[in-house]
Amino acid sequence: MAQGIIENLITQLTKLPGIGRKTAQRLAFFILTMQTEDAKAIAESIVDVKDKARFCSICFNITDKDPCNICSDSSRDKSRICVVEEPSNIIAVERTRIFDGTYHVLLGALSPLDGVTPDRLKITELVNRLQLNNVSEVILATNPNTKGEMTARYITEIIKPFNVRVTRIAYGLPIGSDIEFADEVTLSKALEGRREL
Amino acid sequence: MAQGIIENLITQLTKLPGIGRKTAQRLAFFILTMQTEDAKAIAESIVDVKDKARFCSICFNITDKDPCNICSDSSRDKSRICVVEEPSNIIAVERTRIFDGTYHVLLGALSPLDGVTPDRLKITELVNRLQLNNVSEVILATNPNTKGEMTARYITEIIKPFNVRVTRIAYGLPIGSDIEFADEVTLSKALEGRREL
Repeated sequence: MAQGIIENLITQLTKLPGIGRKTAQRLAFFILTMQTEDAKAIAESIVDVKDKARFCSICFNITDKDPCNICSDSSRDKSRICVVEEPSNIIAVERTRIFDGTYHVLLGALSPLDGVTPDRLKITELVNRLQLNNVSEVILATNPNTKGEMTARYITEIIKPFNVRVTRIAYGLPIGSDIEFADEVTLSKALEGRREL
Repeated sequence: MAQGIIENLITQLTKLPGIGRKTAQRLAFFILTMQTEDAKAIAESIVDVKDKARFCSICFNITDKDPCNICSDSSRDKSRICVVEEPSNIIAVERTRIFDGTYHVLLGALSPLDGVTPDRLKITELVNRLQLNNVSEVILATNPNTKGEMTARYITEIIKPFNVRVTRIAYGLPIGSDIEFADEVTLSKALEGRREL
C-alpha cells in the first residue's frame, strides 16, 4: 500500500473496539492535521496508562499511585463503601457528585458457569476492610442484571455477621424514559420500589 | 476526579472526532486491558505520523519518504495521473486495486467564497508534471459535488492546451443501492451516462 506510516496508524487504530477501517481512516487523517503536541499528548496518555496503571491496594480501583486518590482523600467518608463490579463504574458514580464515601471494586461479578467463583472477586478484601475500619454502610452498586444481582445477594450473606447496614441501589424507570416503552421487569421493580410523596 | 492517568487518557481521546466521553471511556478501559506492547504500538504509530509525515514533492500524497511509495514504484504507469482532492482519497482509489497509474493530490477543492482560489491548490504542480512527463491521461477524481465539479472543470480548461486525454470518474447509482431511493440528480446522471451492453 501507499503510505507506510498512515497505513500503520490506521491498522493500529482498528485494534480498538468499535473502530472499523473507515473510522480509523478518518481518525488517522484527523491526527495528521492536529497540532503535533496535541497528537503526541494522546500517544503519551496511552503510554502513561500502560506504564503506571495498577490497582489500589485498598479498593482495587485503577490508579497511578497507591492508595488511590479517593482512598487517600481525607475528606471522603471512610465509613461508607460503595461496591462496584469494575473500575469504570466508579467514574459513573463519581459523575453523579452525590457520593462522598469510598469504593470497593470487585473486579467482576459472580458467574460460576464462566468460572468466576467468589474467590476470583475481591470479596475477602472487602470483608477485611469491614473488620479493620469502622464501616457503617455498604452500598451494593453491582449491575442490575443476573450476575450483578447474584453477586449482591452473595455479598449480603457474607456481610451479615458484621452488623453493617447493606443497601442496594434502586431499580426503576430511567429519568426521561416513557412508561409506555418500559420493559415489564423494570416497570414491576419501579412499582415495587414506590415511595411515599 | 479519581484516576489521574485514566481521566487524562479519556480527555485526550475525546479530542478525536466522533469520540464523545462515553466512547473515550470505553476505549480507555479497553486500552487498560490490552497487551502493553499493543497499546504502545498505537501510541508509537501516532508519534510516527506526527514526526515523519510530509507531502510527496511529486504528487502531494502524505508519505514518510520522498518521493512517496507510489511515485517511486517503477511498476506504476507514470503516463496516467489520477487527480484527487485529499490524500485520503488515494487510499480509497487504491483499495479498488484497478488503478496502476500515479496520483496528484490537489490538497483541496476550489471554493472561491472560502478563499480557496486555484493558486491555493496544487494545480500549477500538476501542469508542471504534464510538461515534464509523457502523460497520456488525466483522470479527474475530485468529489461529485459542487466544489469538486468546479475544480474538475477548471483543471480541464487549464489542461486543454497540453493535448492530454482528460476523463472524469463516472456518476451513477452506487452498487447495491435501490433505484426507488436514488435521488433525482444521481438518477439523471445515471441515465445520461448509460452505456451499450
